[in-house]
Amino acid sequence: MTTEYDQLKANDASFVPLTPLSFLQRTADIYPQRESVIYNSRRYTWAQTRTRCTRVASSLAARGLGKNDTVSMFAFNTPEMFEAHFAVPMAGAVLNTINTRLDAATVSYIIDHGESKVFMVDRQLWPVLEEALQSCQLQPEIIIIDDADAIEKPPLPDNVDFSYYEDLVEHGDETFNWRMPEDEWQALTLNYTSGTTGHPKGVVYHHRGSYLMTMGTVVSWSLPQHPRYLYTVPMFHCNGWGHAWTMTAVAGTIVCMRTFNPKLLFDLVEEHQITHFGGAPVILNMLANASEYDQKNFARTINVMTAGAPPPARVLESMTQFGFEVMHVYGLTETFGHILQAAPQDSWASESPERQAELKSRQGVRFAMTEAVDVISPQTGNSVPWDSETIGEIVIRGNTTMKGYLKDPESTDKAFNNGWFFSGDLAVVHQDGYIQVKDRAKDIIISGGENISSVEIESVLYKHPSVGEAAVVALADEKWGEVPCAFVELKSGKQASEQELIDFCAENMARFKRPKSVIFGELPKTATGKIQKNVLRGQAKKNITS
Amino acid sequence: MTTEYDQLKANDASFVPLTPLSFLQRTADIYPQRESVIYNSRRYTWAQTRTRCTRVASSLAARGLGKNDTVSMFAFNTPEMFEAHFAVPMAGAVLNTINTRLDAATVSYIIDHGESKVFMVDRQLWPVLEEALQSCQLQPEIIIIDDADAIEKPPLPDNVDFSYYEDLVEHGDETFNWRMPEDEWQALTLNYTSGTTGHPKGVVYHHRGSYLMTMGTVVSWSLPQHPRYLYTVPMFHCNGWGHAWTMTAVAGTIVCMRTFNPKLLFDLVEEHQITHFGGAPVILNMLANASEYDQKNFARTINVMTAGAPPPARVLESMTQFGFEVMHVYGLTETFGHILQAAPQDSWASESPERQAELKSRQGVRFAMTEAVDVISPQTGNSVPWDSETIGEIVIRGNTTMKGYLKDPESTDKAFNNGWFFSGDLAVVHQDGYIQVKDRAKDIIISGGENISSVEIESVLYKHPSVGEAAVVALADEKWGEVPCAFVELKSGKQASEQELIDFCAENMARFKRPKSVIFGELPKTATGKIQKNVLRGQAKKNITS
Repeated sequence: MTTEYDQLKANDASFVPLTPLSFLQRTADIYPQRESVIYNSRRYTWAQTRTRCTRVASSLAARGLGKNDTVSMFAFNTPEMFEAHFAVPMAGAVLNTINTRLDAATVSYIIDHGESKVFMVDRQLWPVLEEALQSCQLQPEIIIIDDADAIEKPPLPDNVDFSYYEDLVEHGDETFNWRMPEDEWQALTLNYTSGTTGHPKGVVYHHRGSYLMTMGTVVSWSLPQHPRYLYTVPMFHCNGWGHAWTMTAVAGTIVCMRTFNPKLLFDLVEEHQITHFGGAPVILNMLANASEYDQKNFARTINVMTAGAPPPARVLESMTQFGFEVMHVYGLTETFGHILQAAPQDSWASESPERQAELKSRQGVRFAMTEAVDVISPQTGNSVPWDSETIGEIVIRGNTTMKGYLKDPESTDKAFNNGWFFSGDLAVVHQDGYIQVKDRAKDIIISGGENISSVEIESVLYKHPSVGEAAVVALADEKWGEVPCAFVELKSGKQASEQELIDFCAENMARFKRPKSVIFGELPKTATGKIQKNVLRGQAKKNITS
Repeated sequence: MTTEYDQLKANDASFVPLTPLSFLQRTADIYPQRESVIYNSRRYTWAQTRTRCTRVASSLAARGLGKNDTVSMFAFNTPEMFEAHFAVPMAGAVLNTINTRLDAATVSYIIDHGESKVFMVDRQLWPVLEEALQSCQLQPEIIIIDDADAIEKPPLPDNVDFSYYEDLVEHGDETFNWRMPEDEWQALTLNYTSGTTGHPKGVVYHHRGSYLMTMGTVVSWSLPQHPRYLYTVPMFHCNGWGHAWTMTAVAGTIVCMRTFNPKLLFDLVEEHQITHFGGAPVILNMLANASEYDQKNFARTINVMTAGAPPPARVLESMTQFGFEVMHVYGLTETFGHILQAAPQDSWASESPERQAELKSRQGVRFAMTEAVDVISPQTGNSVPWDSETIGEIVIRGNTTMKGYLKDPESTDKAFNNGWFFSGDLAVVHQDGYIQVKDRAKDIIISGGENISSVEIESVLYKHPSVGEAAVVALADEKWGEVPCAFVELKSGKQASEQELIDFCAENMARFKRPKSVIFGELPKTATGKIQKNVLRGQAKKNITS
């Protein structure tokens, strides 16, 4: 009998490679007249978006691009950026979005490492690219996105050939027979991580993963049909958390936000009846701290996904007044974005608001498409007990895990081991099975043989009314091995002394975890807004020993 | 560069075969204490359901069952039936659910053809199985489901060895290390179609398809987390439209309904705060025609999926008063159930209630997981124009298409052709791209060179106040080739003459399509309630020529 079941082989009608391109095809077929993308005075329907993407894809194909060719995109959240998420793979090529805050040297590295053949750039960023092109070996074809609504409009290149993005649309062939991928494991996008040290690593996504990311996000975020989504998350971050594809699958309307500011967000939420958006806690914090004149309270519920760091309790509470229902999620560039979520339990409703905020700020439990997540003790290699205390490394298994790091077999091999992807994040598991990140592996402080989470100290510091931002790093210590050293940026107009903050920590957590010193000043950050702890470590050493 | 992207190979952490078993694992991990299944006084949590399934799986494995072994299930919608959808594949085996209305001869055929190794049977159905076992060559091991709430309790077998289902639970090992499928294309279930002629065909489902069916259903039916689902659709029909797996993915609560009756449905919807259920239009019709004392109107919205035939306008309208929001879908056993839906458009809101009912009664547009559906002219092999008139055959492509028909390469090859699965259903496409079924290919009437849809005539007959049920078949005719012949069952206490109904048709549709004769009486049906048109064709020939 075994052979009888196995004799039934897949064919073209029963096996179609999974790809997010299917979502555009279906939505444009069923809802051709619904609005797809809005950006200021520009408005498109799904039929128009498909046509534009097809034309751009045909223009890329006409330039000889095809499977596994890299197309870079150095741009803001404008309709072109959204379209590229379909147009580039419709040509069979790989979309490489680049962080708009990167410096020329890093962009140059990415062009060469990623072997960029076509480079699409927002006019505002041309000066950075111009500089990058001086030092890179490859010279990709330049496509300029000339956004009429950009505030900064530097002069266009005069000694380099280029085309305009709209030329690709205009001269493209809307009858172009774009193809689905032959294999669902085919490369879809290339995302460079903004490592705090060394060269960025090129994370490669596959079509299968992005398709399943979409499906799992709809299931676990309970996305309805036709959400009205404000694209605040930069699309160069994990492809904007995959929401370009997800919102297409549910035939939503995407409102583009070129650059974030709190007033604009409140205005757009009101004007376009936004139902969903995403943003890192730093964005939510800016909304909470915005001027009262700019803030707006909505009577309806707006669903907000947040990721990148645990949202502080006071931020979560202030979101409620706006009508924003926050879902905290966790993920990595290597996992296509979110794979865990602080999924609410019925029992949470009876907890105090403060306790609810704590529960919601945990990284949580797996999304619908995430097959398995565990926290493994580096010492024993076994799962840690669910005791809220024992720290281990988060490991992940599932179909939204990257293909690997491009041209970096060593890092790829190191990340994948024994059927798991190793995240590099250290966490505990609570008694309810919810995971809470304690630190990046390299940021943990080992003092007198005890693991001290720098994140835990930071979260205590954030509770102090004068603290604006805080970061804690390890400082070498003769007696203890390492001790915590805190860096603090005070809120404007607020005061606190070093001793006051040390005492505050001692009173609000296990005393031995308190920082031994506090240094005040602005915190250095990467282009993606991550605090550069490596810089702080050097600074700590210098300040304390000098 | 091409090779650099392609060098990144899948591994155990980045590629996990898709299977609906993942949903149970995740939901039981995250919501162990939520209610999973309710049946009268029996209530289980997700932790309990997983434990019960694991124990049953271990008991099956202990009997030597594994990959590609068939386990038959001849039972009603009780918790055991739900559990089998996980327990059987957790043992690696294939679940073969059997229509409870089938006769012994057909059951006997299925046992032999499907090579059933273990046969689980509800005690009420034991007499049918006992008779079936007389004539089949294989003698599967018998497991009795002894439902305390069954009304009919025939004597248990005295000359055949058997176990009770609860023995499998009790003696099972809850630490059993059940395995995910090695391959997502592995056989998951075996569903015999209730062909109106000849032997039933064994449709084989794969794990990949059921996983994607779930995901696409959540997307296109906008299923929230934690629905409260009343299981009215028999789980032997396309595995209950896949809802056993889908409701698990969204951590719903499933309320089992052993046998349908309108009063019980209204009572259960009220008692358990049901949010979703499914049912063929005949079920909805029974609700609409139920006694006023049994009906209940709900202030909230209850989402109802209907399939199997277009719901009549008057039925759709009466559903509204109960608070039932009906989504009409279309599919086949071969496509894991629903693949098209009458997805509403904003513009429909401004139409008259009658027109809205018409729009909603169409088969519609594709579900999120359906890759492509077309209507192809049998003459030209091309897509039909979107003119609401030109009839062609519905063809389907996607990942929720069966592996094939078991041990029937001829039918399998015939069904799959040129990258399409051929449905056998004839349809038109409207100007908005929505598909409407006109007839089964073999039921179309070709009269004077014109295609006449038997379904179209039937829908006119249904509008007559005296008509309870109607079926139209082709009758050979010297002059016209074929002419329509109608069979009608009048509503109790109502009257209508043959001429009156013919005139009614002539007035309400193109005159040439009117039936040439009307025969009154009860309509013969298959075990699944389908009207047996082949029987009617024989009867027509006999009646008219005699």
